[in-house]
Amino acid sequence: MLYLLDLIGVAVFAVSGVLAAGRAGLDLLGVLVIAAVTAIGGGTLRDLLLGRHPIFWIRDTRYLQVILASAVATVLYVRFFPPPGIALLLADALGLALFAITGAQIAEAARLSPLIVVLTGTMTGAAGGVLRDVLTNRVPLLLSGDIYGSAAIGGITLYLLLQRCGMGRRLAFYIGFAGIAALRLGGILGDWSLPTFRLAG
Amino acid sequence: MLYLLDLIGVAVFAVSGVLAAGRAGLDLLGVLVIAAVTAIGGGTLRDLLLGRHPIFWIRDTRYLQVILASAVATVLYVRFFPPPGIALLLADALGLALFAITGAQIAEAARLSPLIVVLTGTMTGAAGGVLRDVLTNRVPLLLSGDIYGSAAIGGITLYLLLQRCGMGRRLAFYIGFAGIAALRLGGILGDWSLPTFRLAG
Amino acid sequence: MLYLLDLIGVAVFAVSGVLAAGRAGLDLLGVLVIAAVTAIGGGTLRDLLLGRHPIFWIRDTRYLQVILASAVATVLYVRFFPPPGIALLLADALGLALFAITGAQIAEAARLSPLIVVLTGTMTGAAGGVLRDVLTNRVPLLLSGDIYGSAAIGGITLYLLLQRCGMGRRLAFYIGFAGIAALRLGGILGDWSLPTFRLAG
Repeated sequence: MLYLLDLIGVAVFAVSGVLAAGRAGLDLLGVLVIAAVTAIGGGTLRDLLLGRHPIFWIRDTRYLQVILASAVATVLYVRFFPPPGIALLLADALGLALFAITGAQIAEAARLSPLIVVLTGTMTGAAGGVLRDVLTNRVPLLLSGDIYGSAAIGGITLYLLLQRCGMGRRLAFYIGFAGIAALRLGGILGDWSLPTFRLAG
Repeated sequence: MLYLLDLIGVAVFAVSGVLAAGRAGLDLLGVLVIAAVTAIGGGTLRDLLLGRHPIFWIRDTRYLQVILASAVATVLYVRFFPPPGIALLLADALGLALFAITGAQIAEAARLSPLIVVLTGTMTGAAGGVLRDVLTNRVPLLLSGDIYGSAAIGGITLYLLLQRCGMGRRLAFYIGFAGIAALRLGGILGDWSLPTFRLAG
Repeated sequence: MLYLLDLIGVAVFAVSGVLAAGRAGLDLLGVLVIAAVTAIGGGTLRDLLLGRHPIFWIRDTRYLQVILASAVATVLYVRFFPPPGIALLLADALGLALFAITGAQIAEAARLSPLIVVLTGTMTGAAGGVLRDVLTNRVPLLLSGDIYGSAAIGGITLYLLLQRCGMGRRLAFYIGFAGIAALRLGGILGDWSLPTFRLAG
């Protein structure tokens, strides 16, 4: 069940990578690279930093197959139809929520401190998008506006607090997951943003 | 023999890094950093992702010495002579071909799946150039036009297929190697490119 | 004592990251991310390349706490006071010197060759700033002008040479440390720079 959700998250992030690559006018290999980086960049950074080998997509090539299939399907789809705006936003929010909580659980299982658990989960959810933005030469979205990483931080913190208050792990998972998705979607629909910090020159 | 070719590949990529740094107007330390990143970035990423320690250039400092010598020689050379255009393109194509196939062989020796073998080889050949472009603040060449990564993918796939059809490993190596170099050079001379994928917005 | 200096170095680099984020107009989470990347990016790259797990800030979360506190304090401080120019430059030079020498000592303790020791120390001191610049979409400062990485290279080389000439490790440490800080501060005050290398085209 979680594995299936994980593959869906990878597919969704791959689609968002393909659309970003299309906006940057990359070639077809570039599209694949950005799709892969967006989809598995966060989990790869997590595995490298935690010293988990083999990296998840080397151990199980299903992930790469899903990325390949999603990328091809997306390129074909947008030839005939407009990009699926709302559906993609929804899917992206679910993908972020899922990756953030499952990433946090991996650090939790390694008995790391709460601060590292929050950080690992946030990184798993958000670092793929940062790499996508760096490679397409933009200031990462994560750093400059939307409620994105902060949604992950909020939801994972909630997930940890609820468990600390005695709630079962599974229920805390669902609530943290829903919290991240709600914060992310609310942020987009309500045009929320964190305050920016601006210094002169 | 392979080791010698490997060092030649490192030298060639270091030269191409120096020339890119010169076009970006970096200082002499920047030149060295870009030369090193271009020459060993791909192999470093490969070793990190496969969990191979010590990293190849930590185990054997000959690589760094070759980079240092190549960078110094190039800076001196271009003071007096024009940059060696055609010779460098040829050398770069050979370096790409060599790194891609030897990188693939490392993943092959670790008994990883064909998809990972292709990916590892392509990354070994092409990731150094991506890092060079990110550090000099350009959209990576890999993503936006030339036949580069795709030459690696094509040649490694050929190398694997020929072995699957019963050809000996050494002969398959030579043919895969020649295939990559030919695709790369043909791509430059014939101005081939992959189709780009462009979305409005 | 060294541990305390290490935490001070992290705090100083976090402050410099916050100020860079402020100049780029990032949001508050972006400020935290850039502060963390600047402060622990170099040491993280060092630990990854040397295969040292757990990474230093995963093993000891004091580092992240210091970053968090420094970032919050800086954001509050610059609301009321002008950014602390000279004090920060001095602190940054001390941070660079400290990270470079302690990074070098880690490679030295692993009995790596002098070339790798110099490289590891320089990376530990300077890579955080490179990551900061890549994420805020600028050509890294390291590559394009100031005496920064070169100060680290000079001081670490001095530290190794003095030991080779029979000086005690502790005294060599202090002299190498002072050398890096002096080169860095001299470079800023005297507007020193390495020659740049510029190619047409």
